[in-house]
Order: sequence, then structure tokens, then C-alpha cells
Amino acid sequence: MWFIPSSPGRRISLELTGIKKPFTEVIKANIGDAHAMGQRPITFLRQVVALCTYPNLLDSPSFPEDAKKRARRILQGCGGNSLGSYTASQGINCIREDVASYIERRDGGVPADPDNIYLTTGASDGISAILKILISGDGKSRTGVMIPIPQYPLYSAAISELDAIQVNYYLDEENCWALNVNELRRALNEAKAYCNPKVLCIINPGNPTGQVQSRKCIEDVIHFAWEEKLFLLADEVYQDNVYSEGCQFHSFKKILYEMGPEYYNNVELASFHSTSKGYMGECGYRGGYMEVINLHPEIKGQLVKLLSVRLCPPVSGQAAMDIVVNPPVPGEESYAQFIKEKESVLNNLAKKAKLTEDMFNKIPGVHCNPLQGAMYAFPRIFIPSKAIEEAKAHKMAPDMFYCMKLLEETGICVVPGSGFGQREGTYHFRMTILPPVEKLKILLEKVKDFHIKFLEKYA
Amino acid sequence: MWFIPSSPGRRISLELTGIKKPFTEVIKANIGDAHAMGQRPITFLRQVVALCTYPNLLDSPSFPEDAKKRARRILQGCGGNSLGSYTASQGINCIREDVASYIERRDGGVPADPDNIYLTTGASDGISAILKILISGDGKSRTGVMIPIPQYPLYSAAISELDAIQVNYYLDEENCWALNVNELRRALNEAKAYCNPKVLCIINPGNPTGQVQSRKCIEDVIHFAWEEKLFLLADEVYQDNVYSEGCQFHSFKKILYEMGPEYYNNVELASFHSTSKGYMGECGYRGGYMEVINLHPEIKGQLVKLLSVRLCPPVSGQAAMDIVVNPPVPGEESYAQFIKEKESVLNNLAKKAKLTEDMFNKIPGVHCNPLQGAMYAFPRIFIPSKAIEEAKAHKMAPDMFYCMKLLEETGICVVPGSGFGQREGTYHFRMTILPPVEKLKILLEKVKDFHIKFLEKYA
Repeated sequence: MWFIPSSPGRRISLELTGIKKPFTEVIKANIGDAHAMGQRPITFLRQVVALCTYPNLLDSPSFPEDAKKRARRILQGCGGNSLGSYTASQGINCIREDVASYIERRDGGVPADPDNIYLTTGASDGISAILKILISGDGKSRTGVMIPIPQYPLYSAAISELDAIQVNYYLDEENCWALNVNELRRALNEAKAYCNPKVLCIINPGNPTGQVQSRKCIEDVIHFAWEEKLFLLADEVYQDNVYSEGCQFHSFKKILYEMGPEYYNNVELASFHSTSKGYMGECGYRGGYMEVINLHPEIKGQLVKLLSVRLCPPVSGQAAMDIVVNPPVPGEESYAQFIKEKESVLNNLAKKAKLTEDMFNKIPGVHCNPLQGAMYAFPRIFIPSKAIEEAKAHKMAPDMFYCMKLLEETGICVVPGSGFGQREGTYHFRMTILPPVEKLKILLEKVKDFHIKFLEKYA
Repeated sequence: MWFIPSSPGRRISLELTGIKKPFTEVIKANIGDAHAMGQRPITFLRQVVALCTYPNLLDSPSFPEDAKKRARRILQGCGGNSLGSYTASQGINCIREDVASYIERRDGGVPADPDNIYLTTGASDGISAILKILISGDGKSRTGVMIPIPQYPLYSAAISELDAIQVNYYLDEENCWALNVNELRRALNEAKAYCNPKVLCIINPGNPTGQVQSRKCIEDVIHFAWEEKLFLLADEVYQDNVYSEGCQFHSFKKILYEMGPEYYNNVELASFHSTSKGYMGECGYRGGYMEVINLHPEIKGQLVKLLSVRLCPPVSGQAAMDIVVNPPVPGEESYAQFIKEKESVLNNLAKKAKLTEDMFNKIPGVHCNPLQGAMYAFPRIFIPSKAIEEAKAHKMAPDMFYCMKLLEETGICVVPGSGFGQREGTYHFRMTILPPVEKLKILLEKVKDFHIKFLEKYA
């Protein structure tokens, strides 16, 4: 099931003007939409995009020289020096070069080739495109795509649309949502009986589960993919969102390289990044990139052909992506402000991650794993059997019933765990930690009060 | 076959740095990319988008008040007043309202409902989405989609990708590429034997053929669609590009309405517009909209679900679309400059349309219909049988062979007619009229010299 996270909140927002509700404001904690929750854009990114949009501003003394330098470089990569020209389907050359340099810096010098970089319309466009070219066959030979449960529902939607088989592997909730290779193996072996599993999707840091994979875990997964000849699809859009002490983001690309030539010459990998998350939160620009490794030349040809149908990714999104991978560096005029803004966002998110975990774990009947990364809590909630019966009478999943009640009574909009998948008989919801700290505290208090009353009502 | 128009030119561009060629510059007359050919952006549009991008500029005295007013309105429609937020999948409400008002003005008061407007990632995104939800079935019941020949290859690519059946109807070259309903009927009746024709695609003004449909012709097509219960898909992205005297753009929506309730209550129609063409030429923003009429509520639900997978169209593209439908009006500060810029582009295009037609018709063995609208010439070229043989020896379509020779010898990049479809045994190419007048004259002279030499060589 593809869940449209914004709909119920929107409906209630509209209703608020008329019918009386026990709250004055809908808080949309259902979608990772940072700016909508009040986060300010990164000044430097917007300056560069504004300069590209209206190049007269290149003469304005109110824009810093380092922003102008980047804008000029981007415009030189555009036909007629205009953001209004089509670019190559793969994206602007100099931006792909900047992406490759970024990956090399991020991965401690592991080489990245601009030819392997494709700029995309957000990460989801790249993920859909790659899945489309990897999926084929029918009957028992239908392509199986392994995805984590819980997952981000783009995956299940794309798999179902492409008529492939969704192969679930379960993350280990008792163990901070860790990925266990034994579970991968179980899922794969069972799936082989009814489909042809070819792709293994990983979301790291996890959405909705927020775990950050250890180096050891990534090595195990890569070894498994190598052994089983699975195409690895690494969704790494939360790579800047790591909060817990002792946790660190490792890219699949880097670990693959460090495991030696037997791995990096053979394992096929596509990894994804985006302007939408991290500290910039620029969802509306629909900027993103993917890096592909060891893609068969024929498949690469198909990919280019497929991407050419949509002509090119939005060029202002490409420009925004450039600033994410090529931000101000020490010595540049805008560096101090950039770092201040970036760290302010990330430090705040880290604070809110801890706050949310602590607050949830104080509520009876709620358990929340540490939010090691990303921007969501995915607490497990106890739903009394009386409430489950009432949900059934309404033909609703129990956690959907819970979330609708929460929305109606508090104005807080979260997404039921059933939209992401969860182990049978367990219930969760996903809530973003994006509201400002003070608002988040109020929100968590309201959830607490609601939950206690809910337990009492259906005791 | 999906033709990637930009590739051969790009390859030769790169080669130019090394190998010696009989020309100094590649002229890319192969793709409708106005800014890449030197057309300047419309100042007002870019001012508004820059203001939305970097709202600090709202305090700058160097931006006009009417631009600021529009920027404020767009930002009020955005979550957190930021272009960086996701919007509803259907697009920002106030922009959909502006689109509806624009359509009402354009169509002399025929009502338009913002609920029927969907903002899209360029027109192609909307066309692909609509085709996707209309196409179903297998075997003899596979969906047939009627498209003009010659056509814009997005259609053939989408149809083939969706595993539907392409049903060709031929435009009448002897009659200025007019659409004849008898030909529609022939194509439909033949197609019924092997598929289930459900969709009729129209491109007006035509791409690559440049014809502008008469009111009578549109009425005939609508009557035909009503009679045969075909879903009408009207690609009207060149609605501002009409040049020939006596020609006028009529929207399918308007004529449908004027034909009375039997028609406008029954015929299903989707029509498309874009920021990429017209006088603004903002291809890189990937802005567009579609209006749907009489779409079944269930199908509408599927459409919204499909669109929600890609989250939302790029928000700066939505903002650009807003300015296309809501430009400065008389009395506003920016009106004079806006009209001057708009008319300069359109008058130039009209001049170039006439110039191109005249020049082509002076070349022996070339015939070119009047360029009534859009931004392309699609001349018919005589290819001698010796050249056809040589092309066959190279396993190339004869017009591809011709276009490759043209590129190698002159640096002029055009697209062979076989990329769009043409009657068996006829040959064409598509060339944009976007280069500046002086450059276009040189280009046409070069084509003439090349063609005469080509005829001599293969006589």
C-alpha cells in the first residue's frame, strides 16, 4: 500500500475553518518536510540559486563573492548560460564533477567517476528509474526485490507498479532495528521458490526506523550481495543525519572499495542522495543524484534512454544539489555563516532525537529505540484488544485507528506503522522530529496524554 | 524509436576540440531549447522566481512591486513560506487557481475549475501520467493510442514503454499537414481488428509539423471522439506560437464547451501546457500543467495516487508556471517591459518562420509547408536513389544518412524525419527556427549549399 502521508492532515486543516475541534492547529509530523516545519533554508544555497535565476544579481554588492563564483560556474555549464535551457539527461557536467569530488572527500579518497553520476529529480526519481531497468520477466521468473520491513513506501509502490515481487526482510526491533544477514538469507531462500531475487534495497540511515548501520553490518551485507549476485541499492539520503554517539555514517561505496578488488570489481551498486534531507531540507527543489558502480554497459544504455524521456532533471534542483556537494570551505567569505547554520540545524536535530526517545520511553505502553539517525521516531505502541476490535469494526488497521484518533483529538498528524510494514501483531507510528524544540515538547506531552487516555478508554 | 535529439551534436561538439572539421561551430537546430540558442529569459518571470528563492530580496528596491506581490502570494502558498517545502502532489493551490483563471481568460469565459488542474514536471510528465492510467489490458484488448504521424517521439516512447499499441493516423502533407477526420476513421477502423483504441492524441500547434488546426477541424475531431468514445489528449504546449496570418489558436477545451452540453458533459479531455515553449522558453524549470475534463472519479483517484509517488513537481517550476499564466497586466509597473520582451520574441519567431519557409522552398528538391505555428520547420527532402543505396549499405535510414552528412559537413544538427515518423518513401528533417535571425540565414544558406552538392554527388 502506498500511503499519501499529507492527506489526512490536509483534510483536517481545511475542516478547521468550520467545525469545532479540540485543538487549534494541525501539527504535521507525518512527513519529512523540514521547511514546512519552520526550518530556515541555508542562506548560501539560496544565494547561489537566486544568482543563477537572475544573473543581474551578479553585479549586486549584497551577494558574497564565493556564491557568485559558484553561480558563474553553474551558468557556464548551462546552454546559453541559462537555467532555462535543457541540460543533458544525466545532468550538467560540472555538477556531476562536483558530486564526484564530494564523494571522494566523503569516502576518504576512494575514487568516483563523474560518468557514473546521474543527477535526478529527487532521490525517488533515481530509485524508480534503476528499479525499472532491473525488473523483468514474468511467472516464476518475476524479479524479486528485497526491501527492509519497515520500509519507506516508495519501494513497495514502485515494486508493485513494475509488477515485481516484494521480498520482505525484517529489521530487528529488539536490537535497535539492526539488519541481520541471517534474516536476509532466510528471506532470500524463501523467495527463490517463487521469484528471481535480483535486487537488495538498503536504507541507511533508516527510514522510518532511524538506525545507523555499523561498518561490520555493511561488510556483511556486501559480502552477502557478492555471494548471491544481488544488485545493491543503497538509499543514503540521510547521510548527514547521524546523531547517536558512537554512530557514524559509512557509505556502501566506501566499504565496497575497502573490501578489495574481488568486491569492488564485481558487486553492482547504485547509491542515492538528495537535497531534501540532511541539514538543507530542500524538498521542493527535487534535486538528487545517484552513483552507479559496475553497471553493465547495456543496462547503462537503457538507463540513459529511460532518463532521456523526461528530458532533464529540473535545473534549479541541479544547482541546489551542487551547493550541497560544494559548500563554502574554510577561507571563503561565507564559510562561517554556512557552518553556523548547518550545525545549528544538525545540533537541534540531535537534541530532538534524544528528547523524543526519552519522552516516548516514559509513556506506559510505548517503546522507542534510539533515534541514531534520519529524522523520525518509530515507537512501538501497545494497542489494547478492545481498541483492536473497534478498529476492526471500522475496517481499519489498529494503528491507523490509533493515528486517526490522535489526529482528531490532538491535531497531531503521524503515519501508522502499517504504511511502512511491521511484524504481525506489532503496532507503531512514524513521527518526524522536525518541529522546533518547544513545539516538539508540547507535541510529545500531548501524545503522552492521549496515549494514557487511550489505554484507559480501551482497558 | 525514441530519438535522443541532443546526442550527435554533443558528440561532434566534443570532437571539435581535437579533429579538424570543415566548420568551426556546431549549430544545434535539433531541439526546441530557446535559451540555449541565445533567447533571453523574460525578466519578470526570473525576478519573481529569484524573489521566491531568496526572500531577502523582497526588501530590495531594485525589484518591482508587481513582482514582489506575486512572489509573496506564491510563498504564502508554500509550507513555511519556502520553495523548499513539498507541495501537494497536484501543485500549489493558488497557482492552480491562477491557471484556471488564465484558461477562462484564454477561452473567452469558458469556466475552468482549479480542482481539474494538475501542475506537472513539464508537459511530458503529465502526458506520461495520463497515458499510464488509461492504458490497460493484454492480447487483443491491449489499449490502442492514436497518434499523428509525424509525431513528437515522447508519444511513441511512452506507448511502447506501457506496452500499448501505437495507432498511426497520417497528417496530410499536401494540405499543410492538416488533420483529416476520414484518416482518423480509417486508422481507427483498421486498429479495431487488433486492439482496443481508447485514446486520441492531438498536437496543436503541431510538432514537428507546425500546422495550426482550424476551428472546423477541431470540431470534427471532437465529434469523432464523442462518437467513438475516445479519450482526447490535447498537447497544446505551443499555444502562444502562432505566426501565419489567418491562423489562430483554439483550445480543445473551448471548442468542446461551445459545442454544447452533449459534448462537454461527455467527452473526456486532458490538455497540456508548459513553461518550456511559447515566448518564455523555460525548459530547464520543468514547469507545466494539465487540465482534465470529465475524468471518471475512480481514474482521478488513480491519477492522484500515481502523482503522489513522485511527491510533487519542482516548486520553482510551479512558480515559473504561475508567471506564465499570471503575467503583468496593464497598469502594473512591469507591464511595458514584459510586453516588449514577449512581443520581441514572438515577432522574431514569426519573421524566422516566414524566412525559413521561403528559403527552403527556393532549394531544388526541398518542399516546406508554411510554418503556421510552433518552432520547427519539417521540410520534405528529395533523396536520390544512389544516396538511398549508400545509406542502406551503412544500415542507416536514408534521412538519417542525410542528416549525418549535413552535420559532418556543416556542423548543423537537425533530426531526421524517421525519428518522428513519415509516409513510406518520403524523407524529411526537423529544424528549429530558434537561432537568431542572422545566424539562421547563414544556417539556411549552408543547408542549401549542402543540399545542392548532395544532389550533385548522388545524381
